[in-house]
Amino acid sequence: MSKELVFGHQNPDTDAIVAAIALANLQNKLGKDVEAVALGELNDETKFVLDHFDQKAPRIIENAAPEVTAVMLVDHNEAQQSVADIANVTVTNVVDHHRIANFETVAPLYYRAEPVGCTSTILWEMYNEKQITISAQLAGLMLSAIISDTLLLQSPTTTEQDKTAVRALAEIAGEDYQAYGLQMLKAGANIADKTAEDLIDEDAKTFEMSTAQVRIAQINVVDLPEAVARKNEFVQAMNNSSTNNNYDLFLLAITNVLNSETTLLAVGEHTLLAKAEQAFGKQLNDNLMELPGVVSRKKQIVPPLQEQF
Amino acid sequence: MSKELVFGHQNPDTDAIVAAIALANLQNKLGKDVEAVALGELNDETKFVLDHFDQKAPRIIENAAPEVTAVMLVDHNEAQQSVADIANVTVTNVVDHHRIANFETVAPLYYRAEPVGCTSTILWEMYNEKQITISAQLAGLMLSAIISDTLLLQSPTTTEQDKTAVRALAEIAGEDYQAYGLQMLKAGANIADKTAEDLIDEDAKTFEMSTAQVRIAQINVVDLPEAVARKNEFVQAMNNSSTNNNYDLFLLAITNVLNSETTLLAVGEHTLLAKAEQAFGKQLNDNLMELPGVVSRKKQIVPPLQEQF
Repeated sequence: MSKELVFGHQNPDTDAIVAAIALANLQNKLGKDVEAVALGELNDETKFVLDHFDQKAPRIIENAAPEVTAVMLVDHNEAQQSVADIANVTVTNVVDHHRIANFETVAPLYYRAEPVGCTSTILWEMYNEKQITISAQLAGLMLSAIISDTLLLQSPTTTEQDKTAVRALAEIAGEDYQAYGLQMLKAGANIADKTAEDLIDEDAKTFEMSTAQVRIAQINVVDLPEAVARKNEFVQAMNNSSTNNNYDLFLLAITNVLNSETTLLAVGEHTLLAKAEQAFGKQLNDNLMELPGVVSRKKQIVPPLQEQF
Repeated sequence: MSKELVFGHQNPDTDAIVAAIALANLQNKLGKDVEAVALGELNDETKFVLDHFDQKAPRIIENAAPEVTAVMLVDHNEAQQSVADIANVTVTNVVDHHRIANFETVAPLYYRAEPVGCTSTILWEMYNEKQITISAQLAGLMLSAIISDTLLLQSPTTTEQDKTAVRALAEIAGEDYQAYGLQMLKAGANIADKTAEDLIDEDAKTFEMSTAQVRIAQINVVDLPEAVARKNEFVQAMNNSSTNNNYDLFLLAITNVLNSETTLLAVGEHTLLAKAEQAFGKQLNDNLMELPGVVSRKKQIVPPLQEQF
């Protein structure tokens, strides 16, 4: 049996890296030659996680076809999120928790998707189904991925299965998941060393809303006052970016991952700022509004805005 | 929780019907309101199976949206094989053993595919994973589906999992699967009551090979001499059909499902008949050639022909 590579999506987060490691290990136990690799540099949170559980980082690849003819995907399926030469290799396995789109095969394959908060939750089930033991180290990694994807089980994407998996994995890993989770999210939410320019671009997407170009960035923090204290820096960076890129409205969601609370900064044309106010039913006070209970751009920020445009 | 429908592909075979019944039952045990339905009339084999195990036939639907907002698919995923109004309902679950193509969702879903010989083999695993008991009746139905899809474990699509599932299900059902399987395949391979015109059209597909229209029909039998005795009838029907539909080459594969043996009848232009001879490395003798070991149109007939054109 020839070797296969397994990887998560580009710009990998903790689940993309951990799910690849977990599926590679599962396949190895089943007798297959599979190596976990990454499609990009690890973020701060993932570096903390691998370090904490003494796990070597997977090597980074740009293309798969020079090494293998077959690959496995975790935490994604859409071609544009995958390895650059995905069209030149055969996908034999997918484990994922996203919608299916822009994915097609010429032959039957293993495909396992569930509408849960994290790919590692599905992998935990697969280990159980095949009665394969999860080591304390791997349990710690998988626990971290679920905490990361669900923001410590607070995100609206969290399911009962994610909660059950977290409790079971925390026990195997010997971690107090609340205390450890806090520490881990903090490691990924360190903004002190980064410039405002970098922070407003790190996780930002442009949306076309009727004719307006709306830029929506999000940063995760654990200390909202520390972030809000840098408001003037952010507003200036957002104004500059809007001028340079022709954005009509720029929103920055600063999300406290510990208590589901977002502070929204907004710059742009007056009529568009008014639309943002209508979308969330709140007034902007000196470019700022509080959005308690909001953590998800996809589920809680884009849809109400879209409706106003 | 609102009701959902589950169904297999159009022109249902035994697996399409049984897998729907098996998944509906599994979902019911998990507390969901799910009904198995069919996208067309049952074939002779499936009628025999449901009768043998005292199972009522699922009702037939034309559209899903008038009844439900959400559906589950078994034994297919491609939109053109599914219910006519598939675009107007949400697919929440898929259990399948085919390639993935022409399938896209807007939200995450349950998707379970494995490259095995039959959907019912995957469902057998799912029952085991969830530790839900399979009744003797349901085991008989699932056993029948696997025998049907794998031609009693003889087809090149058969895997070790299919074999294990057949043995386990036969024990629960209390059936001698060899004896029962023979009886069942015979019930589906009764050609005595059908006209040659119907038989050459029942399971026929047209392929465009370079500029030629190549029609390839297949019929399953258990008594090859009985079928070959009707050769002149078949050849006449094939000639008439070619004239009426402008086929350049018409092949009829008469497959003995009990011993992996096919007799091929061919009519068409001389140069194209010569291509068929080259494709299989055999001479046609009065429009007929023997193809021992051949059972699969998809895997063993189309590819070598395609190569000659």
